[in-house]
Amino acid sequence: MARVVVDVMPKPEILDVQGQAVTRALGRIGVSGVSGVRQGKHFELEVDDAIDDETLHRLAGSLLANPVIEDWTVTRL
Amino acid sequence: MARVVVDVMPKPEILDVQGQAVTRALGRIGVSGVSGVRQGKHFELEVDDAIDDETLHRLAGSLLANPVIEDWTVTRL
Repeated sequence: MARVVVDVMPKPEILDVQGQAVTRALGRIGVSGVSGVRQGKHFELEVDDAIDDETLHRLAGSLLANPVIEDWTVTRL
Repeated sequence: MARVVVDVMPKPEILDVQGQAVTRALGRIGVSGVSGVRQGKHFELEVDDAIDDETLHRLAGSLLANPVIEDWTVTRL
């Protein structure tokens, strides 16, 4: 068994309303010095050792991320 | 300006319905070899260099994560 992390983020040109909401909320609770926040998804998968990187990348792009508006990275721990 | 990543995950004892849904969906689309998926949130922050780690950890625990049901890690890139 291997552990794999997939991080999915909105593409840079896509408006990230969740991240903007967090940025504004930081100002309201008195935290200064944070100029930008972008929010995405973080997946931790338990996979068989037999699964290769190409399969993982395809799996992430078809089920975990929307390739039209999101980028994703696959990292083996 | 420094970049900071905050990953927020449901605590191990908390039922993760999103992750369970992804795990089942994998089986339906014909992907075998993935025995578990847990889903959390991934934040990328742009912060001033003056902000110290303790402030970042407090910020993450008060605004980005719910400490009752979630764990979080803070990583400087």
